[in-house]
Amino acid sequence: MRPLLSGVFAPVVTPFKADLDVDAELFVRHCRWLLSQGAGLAIFGTNSEANSLSLEQRRQLLDRLIAEGLDPQRMLPGTGCCAIDDTVALTRHAVAAGCAGVLMLPPFYYKGISDEGLYRYYAEVIARVDSPRLKLYLYHIPAFTGVPISLGLIERLRRDFPETVVGIKDSSGDWDNLAAMLAAFPDMAVFPASESLLSRALPLGAAGCISATANVNPAGIRRLYAQWDQPDAALLQQQADAVRQTFQSFPMIAALKFATACYSGNASWATVRPPLVALGAKQQEELQAALERIHFSMPDMGH
Amino acid sequence: MRPLLSGVFAPVVTPFKADLDVDAELFVRHCRWLLSQGAGLAIFGTNSEANSLSLEQRRQLLDRLIAEGLDPQRMLPGTGCCAIDDTVALTRHAVAAGCAGVLMLPPFYYKGISDEGLYRYYAEVIARVDSPRLKLYLYHIPAFTGVPISLGLIERLRRDFPETVVGIKDSSGDWDNLAAMLAAFPDMAVFPASESLLSRALPLGAAGCISATANVNPAGIRRLYAQWDQPDAALLQQQADAVRQTFQSFPMIAALKFATACYSGNASWATVRPPLVALGAKQQEELQAALERIHFSMPDMGH
Repeated sequence: MRPLLSGVFAPVVTPFKADLDVDAELFVRHCRWLLSQGAGLAIFGTNSEANSLSLEQRRQLLDRLIAEGLDPQRMLPGTGCCAIDDTVALTRHAVAAGCAGVLMLPPFYYKGISDEGLYRYYAEVIARVDSPRLKLYLYHIPAFTGVPISLGLIERLRRDFPETVVGIKDSSGDWDNLAAMLAAFPDMAVFPASESLLSRALPLGAAGCISATANVNPAGIRRLYAQWDQPDAALLQQQADAVRQTFQSFPMIAALKFATACYSGNASWATVRPPLVALGAKQQEELQAALERIHFSMPDMGH
Repeated sequence: MRPLLSGVFAPVVTPFKADLDVDAELFVRHCRWLLSQGAGLAIFGTNSEANSLSLEQRRQLLDRLIAEGLDPQRMLPGTGCCAIDDTVALTRHAVAAGCAGVLMLPPFYYKGISDEGLYRYYAEVIARVDSPRLKLYLYHIPAFTGVPISLGLIERLRRDFPETVVGIKDSSGDWDNLAAMLAAFPDMAVFPASESLLSRALPLGAAGCISATANVNPAGIRRLYAQWDQPDAALLQQQADAVRQTFQSFPMIAALKFATACYSGNASWATVRPPLVALGAKQQEELQAALERIHFSMPDMGH
């Protein structure tokens, strides 16, 4: 059996050209840099603007990474869509590419969805993909989806698909929920969505984190992950928190991309797809000043 | 210039086979019946489970309706997706098919979206479709999208695209919001999402309604729409309300489909795609009993 994923993953920001087309070359370079800094690739997540990409754009980007020789065993692409057919298409593609797992949003248009309905959705996807190589990580992010993934649903999926449903990302930001997941599912890979929870969550068995700010601070978060039980852990947590809090006080995706533009020297990084909006001039100044105050940098950026 | 749409539109429920595949033949039959009862076809709306369909499934269904000779000038397909490329693809297809207009959801994954971001989204779609034949109806349904369409946004879109952004469906269920839209945009086609508002909204200039229950009570709602200023209007409103309230007290889409199954004699109509769940046995009994109490029927169902 394939081992569960662990460590630090970046929901990789997706670079666009001025005409909003995907910049695949820049994407590959950023992915290489993230790997070199010790982060895994949770491509096509919320911070990747994945739902602003077409299915074909997602498939082409993954194919490009593979063609460039990046290791699919370090990849956890997002594949959850509103329509089962779309989710199956992306998931099959990721499995065929040899990805270590997929991170699957619940269908997120309808609200007030029952656990029974979500169970049927995931069960249908699993049945159609029909592969022992499928390793499914559930994605709990109720502030965006309005469709929470309950402990009861996870329990039922674990019971019926123990070799397939192997992990979860908890983006609720709710410590009690994370602690309950860690306690209830010790055999699953449970990832909080923020490095700020690592010091508390790793001793309880968390697998690492899948965090937006791993796009800009992969090495710092990686050090914290690796040394959480060492004497300098408190300092490492403090340093990581300072970066996190700085970015969190701006629109996250626009801020991540603006910082990447600054430290790479490539201004096109700042582009986002509507309905998101890039940082305005005042926000840019404020973010730069805040990053200087904490002596932030993105080392070895080749892009 | 093409006239604005008006009247009663059904967000047409989409029939599925037991394996969840689309039943295109049954869909055509239902659309024909709705037209025969005086309702227009707001295919691919919320009640159509449109976001549970792939782009290709939506394109094929629309092509099939056209091939079967149904009038595209009676069609208002939903084309709004999270990704601009997808929205553009569906909108171009609908325009090429000769549809009277398109009903466009805002991108609905990200929350806390600014009016500026939504403006850029719609402006980008309009620029890419680039057709004087595009007649765009905005779709305000904040309970599902979490992304409201504000009066300020409408005003800006109307100012910059007066020949394109010509209407709106208000599914907020908020009378004050509907009244404000009717007052602010007398030149737009404003559709409430429920026939229960017709008697109040038509005197203020509403264009009609686009209502879930027009799937099962098209003729009743059509009569109310046509006779709202006649002596029997109060009775017609009361009768329409009784149907609406009955369906509203159940999960709407499952209830519409179960009723269609009952009155057409075709049990497969009851099928919904996950994450929705069909009515359970107890709910089915309750709905049937409630419909009998109000002497409900679906006349001339040939499907």
